[in-house]
Amino acid sequence: MELEFVRWLRERACPTPGIEVGIGDDAAVLTLSREQSTVVSTDMLMDGVDFRLAEVSPRRVGRKALAVNLSDLAAMAAIPHAALVSLAVPRKLELEWLQEFYVGLEALAAEFDTTLVGGDTNSWDGPLVINVTVLGSTTSRGPLLRRGARPGDAILVTGTLGGSILGHHLEFTPRVREALELHRHYELHAGMDISDGLTLDLSRLCEESGCGAELELARIPVSAAATQWAEQRRDGLSPLEHALQDGEDFELLLAVPAAEAERLLVEQPLAVPLTRIGAILAEPGLFARAADGTRHPLQPRGYVH
Amino acid sequence: MELEFVRWLRERACPTPGIEVGIGDDAAVLTLSREQSTVVSTDMLMDGVDFRLAEVSPRRVGRKALAVNLSDLAAMAAIPHAALVSLAVPRKLELEWLQEFYVGLEALAAEFDTTLVGGDTNSWDGPLVINVTVLGSTTSRGPLLRRGARPGDAILVTGTLGGSILGHHLEFTPRVREALELHRHYELHAGMDISDGLTLDLSRLCEESGCGAELELARIPVSAAATQWAEQRRDGLSPLEHALQDGEDFELLLAVPAAEAERLLVEQPLAVPLTRIGAILAEPGLFARAADGTRHPLQPRGYVH
Repeated sequence: MELEFVRWLRERACPTPGIEVGIGDDAAVLTLSREQSTVVSTDMLMDGVDFRLAEVSPRRVGRKALAVNLSDLAAMAAIPHAALVSLAVPRKLELEWLQEFYVGLEALAAEFDTTLVGGDTNSWDGPLVINVTVLGSTTSRGPLLRRGARPGDAILVTGTLGGSILGHHLEFTPRVREALELHRHYELHAGMDISDGLTLDLSRLCEESGCGAELELARIPVSAAATQWAEQRRDGLSPLEHALQDGEDFELLLAVPAAEAERLLVEQPLAVPLTRIGAILAEPGLFARAADGTRHPLQPRGYVH
Repeated sequence: MELEFVRWLRERACPTPGIEVGIGDDAAVLTLSREQSTVVSTDMLMDGVDFRLAEVSPRRVGRKALAVNLSDLAAMAAIPHAALVSLAVPRKLELEWLQEFYVGLEALAAEFDTTLVGGDTNSWDGPLVINVTVLGSTTSRGPLLRRGARPGDAILVTGTLGGSILGHHLEFTPRVREALELHRHYELHAGMDISDGLTLDLSRLCEESGCGAELELARIPVSAAATQWAEQRRDGLSPLEHALQDGEDFELLLAVPAAEAERLLVEQPLAVPLTRIGAILAEPGLFARAADGTRHPLQPRGYVH
């Protein structure tokens, strides 16, 4: 199976500037930016955890496998260049499934000028496991890090949050362009993508920056899916709570100097809405400010791997 | 588990030149060589396929997971710099196992100036899956490729072949230094590492180079392990046949201009022996030359993933 699949992959590959050696040798050889730094990230997806093989089309699985990685590059405000895909494939899975998986992955790769340069395809008796590694480069403004948030910074998010499991986790567009646009034209102190849930990821940003944060609950952009999921789930969690702790939003979470945030919110330079949801505090810990002005500690919650 | 393990990993990390951002952000940021190209490879290892969790110490698994990847960089004559490790970890596996796994991986990484810069640790109900990605850079002589072998070239191998399953596959030292030494001081036309078996991998080198090859059976450096394995296995295969087709030797397979090969064989510049085992032919296909001078076609055999 490996041989046939790799052959099929190679036949699809086109010469790409910057890719000296792609699929087919022992390793790939790339000419990345001579001036900038290399950014690299890797993510593993497993059947039954990140998707359900029996319920999802192979194209959507392929799309997601790359999208979660591109979201990590977005989180660094990096420009994507190349991807490597490793697979542990159940023996009963057909070549056609793999080809469709790759078609889904390739469509998203093409959208983000990302070339598949290598990988490792294996058969086994276990469930499907996919590992994708992406390589990119920083812009001249350097990487956007989790550390760097300062007391008084506004906390902004792109898009809406919660209920991703209803479909968004398979369909989202990684915020690569948005991150590059913002990083280029505005002063951002810190940033990351929300992959494990707003409060859990915000607590990580705060930890790296040595600060705390206050969220204004009335300002959280709760998605329609969060409302639908709360109704469907009936687990006692409100739509807001789902927005605060559901995983896989893959939106950007940013700490921006207050005045710059004002400008950003007026200009709204992205196709997707930017919302101010709180502020960075000197005091460690997460806090929630309710609509009535009362403040209480907020437990970071989210998806724990 | 992820949190605790990643915390433990981060505490062990030291500042390393060239690593701007290591473990702990959404991606790693590296300053690789400004002059040379980036070389990247990825390999997935699965419990029950590449190792047996119940039978092998975690340190040896960690060592192997990195070693197979470093062997791919050796195959390109590249200098290793960084590694990323993704894990799908069975829920019952203890933190201590992971720590020991990492200690084994780290020891080999230190030997080859390779820094662990990131990864993705996940729990699940399936068997252990490990994916390692390594990044390196070419030297000023560029990468050593599978293509480039020419009729008349001598075929050389490092070390001895066969019976790797008896222990070598967990203990081998990737031929990174050997490849760099040879690539620097000698003219090599093509090269790769033998991971799936001599004849299968040689057929790949020939395919990439658009040529064929003849092996002199009497010259194949059959390992003691191949002899032992043939005796133990009693599968009708001779020690020579094991040397020709067993996987996971992780030795270097090189196509070298004939005169340069003479020089190399006299000088023997490596601590490990270099053996001339055949020649590159213009005619496609693999052939075996027996001790009595007769020639017959040779079927490429080896480990198919």
